Amino acid sequence: MTPTRRRLVLAGLALPLAAPAFAQPRQSDPLPSWRDGPRRRALLDFVASVTTEGGPDFVPPSARVAVFDNDGTLWVEQPAYTQLLFVFDRLRALAPANPAWRDDPLFRAAIEGDLHGAASGGVEGLLRLAGAAQAGNTPDSFQRLVAAWLASARDRRWNRPYTELVYQPMLEVLALLRANGFTCFIVSGGGVEFIRAFAEASYGIPPHQVIGSTFALEPGEAEGRVVLTRQPRVDFVDDGPGKPVGIAKHIGRRPIAAFGNSDGDWHMLRYTTEGPGRRLAMIIRHDDAEREYAYDRASHVGRLARALDEAPARGWHVVSMREDWARVFA
Amino acid sequence: MTPTRRRLVLAGLALPLAAPAFAQPRQSDPLPSWRDGPRRRALLDFVASVTTEGGPDFVPPSARVAVFDNDGTLWVEQPAYTQLLFVFDRLRALAPANPAWRDDPLFRAAIEGDLHGAASGGVEGLLRLAGAAQAGNTPDSFQRLVAAWLASARDRRWNRPYTELVYQPMLEVLALLRANGFTCFIVSGGGVEFIRAFAEASYGIPPHQVIGSTFALEPGEAEGRVVLTRQPRVDFVDDGPGKPVGIAKHIGRRPIAAFGNSDGDWHMLRYTTEGPGRRLAMIIRHDDAEREYAYDRASHVGRLARALDEAPARGWHVVSMREDWARVFA
Repeated sequence: MTPTRRRLVLAGLALPLAAPAFAQPRQSDPLPSWRDGPRRRALLDFVASVTTEGGPDFVPPSARVAVFDNDGTLWVEQPAYTQLLFVFDRLRALAPANPAWRDDPLFRAAIEGDLHGAASGGVEGLLRLAGAAQAGNTPDSFQRLVAAWLASARDRRWNRPYTELVYQPMLEVLALLRANGFTCFIVSGGGVEFIRAFAEASYGIPPHQVIGSTFALEPGEAEGRVVLTRQPRVDFVDDGPGKPVGIAKHIGRRPIAAFGNSDGDWHMLRYTTEGPGRRLAMIIRHDDAEREYAYDRASHVGRLARALDEAPARGWHVVSMREDWARVFA
Repeated sequence: MTPTRRRLVLAGLALPLAAPAFAQPRQSDPLPSWRDGPRRRALLDFVASVTTEGGPDFVPPSARVAVFDNDGTLWVEQPAYTQLLFVFDRLRALAPANPAWRDDPLFRAAIEGDLHGAASGGVEGLLRLAGAAQAGNTPDSFQRLVAAWLASARDRRWNRPYTELVYQPMLEVLALLRANGFTCFIVSGGGVEFIRAFAEASYGIPPHQVIGSTFALEPGEAEGRVVLTRQPRVDFVDDGPGKPVGIAKHIGRRPIAAFGNSDGDWHMLRYTTEGPGRRLAMIIRHDDAEREYAYDRASHVGRLARALDEAPARGWHVVSMREDWARVFA
């Protein structure tokens, strides 16, 4: 047992000290899908250091806050954000009743399934499409729509439900952090209610620990009941500089660990690691065309350039999917 | 042991079944500060019914969401919201640098400590004062300001820190619900960061489970760091019809239990009890001038009229401080 492993075990995994850890690697190893190397060791070292009572880096459980981007960090975001594919299907179904959409290049691209055209407006353009596709519903009915879509839709490359395209190594990180007293949040540029429809089942993250972009909700009355109606208007964009704002408003504490994969996470990673004390930031780099995808600087979604260039100077760890992950999907 | 008590114990309090519960009332009674009666029994019945697996009212732990108003529900709100007294002190300190405030009747009232004048603008007026008093800070520095103020300020009637004026019976409700798998949230009209400064220490409610009114946060840079600066502009009023909106945006699930004390909670209580399945709504009625305060219809803060009138028809329980609480403060 290495000193790191030993500290980790002592710190919180509650394994009997007498157990031969190496003899039963699958049972005692909290990160079986991570290959040994600097990234795996950085994760284990960080967890051990902030959970070692009396140690210089100890953080009380209430301040053990970790934030995760969703698309490209916890599940696949290529060839398009899954939420966008849902929006396309909804817009197509609603198009006959909305003939004006045919005159809007963004909406026309979406209805025709033109990924590049629909993505040409950036996150704000995507949220405009999402707003139109989702307006008029209550939050409850919208989550049911999403759940029904996720149950039937399939990714074309793997012919599997999108919810099976979550990254097994990241599920292990979530479990490791939870076992060590962390509270884990998703902080996504995507619409928050889409993610809430599957985050608990797929990641074990309850709805109130999902932060995302939001649409205006109008309170009103119908049939003697309070009814909240989704408006097409985006009232908060939880991307780029919006991520620290979303974190401050929703969590009210600066995270000590952050995981992202694109320049949209640059502000969140900075906000996390610019705080005092021991911090951890990891960037998931998509460099595995065979098992998943290889993209970063060139991609129309999940573009990673600035955060990658600055990672060494900022002490951020760049995770290579190809090298660091023994397994990609669950 | 009554059937209700027995079911409750079986459902989650993990007391040994052989323990003589009545012989050790203080140790086994989850609500020692509640006098026996319909309200206490309604609480225990509700918890037992939603936690009884296989029963008709069973709710899985992930959906056991309870929401609590803060001022007047968890702590004293008379003679003025504590947050307002903090704002007065801040405005007084900042007044020399802001001579224009002298020409604004609302600000003049606040600086002079005129409670009625400062409250004349309703919740929105109070939030305007709060915004001005708190602008220019980062969320972190603001929470430190609040913590320092709470450590030194004293309530005049009791000469005690405000954080000691929390209601012991409500602390017991929070503990009972938590022990039974509930996640408890504060949903307050007050500014969220003020409450976050003490909610964890006073109620055991972490910052991310506090929902409240918010001020715009501007992201920027200073000395090579991401800095969030509080603006005087209110961007969300979490009161009245705003409470269900705040709940939907932040929690993403309809609560099954709600606790309030004023008409500002009317929409929240409705939103909670209009959902399907077993629900619980309780109104704390301030009718104990001797031990706390007696007010409802006539008060300038915490006015309770409509919610009180409609309580019987809606199945909401009206808690009498005088009759139902054996003890008020911790």
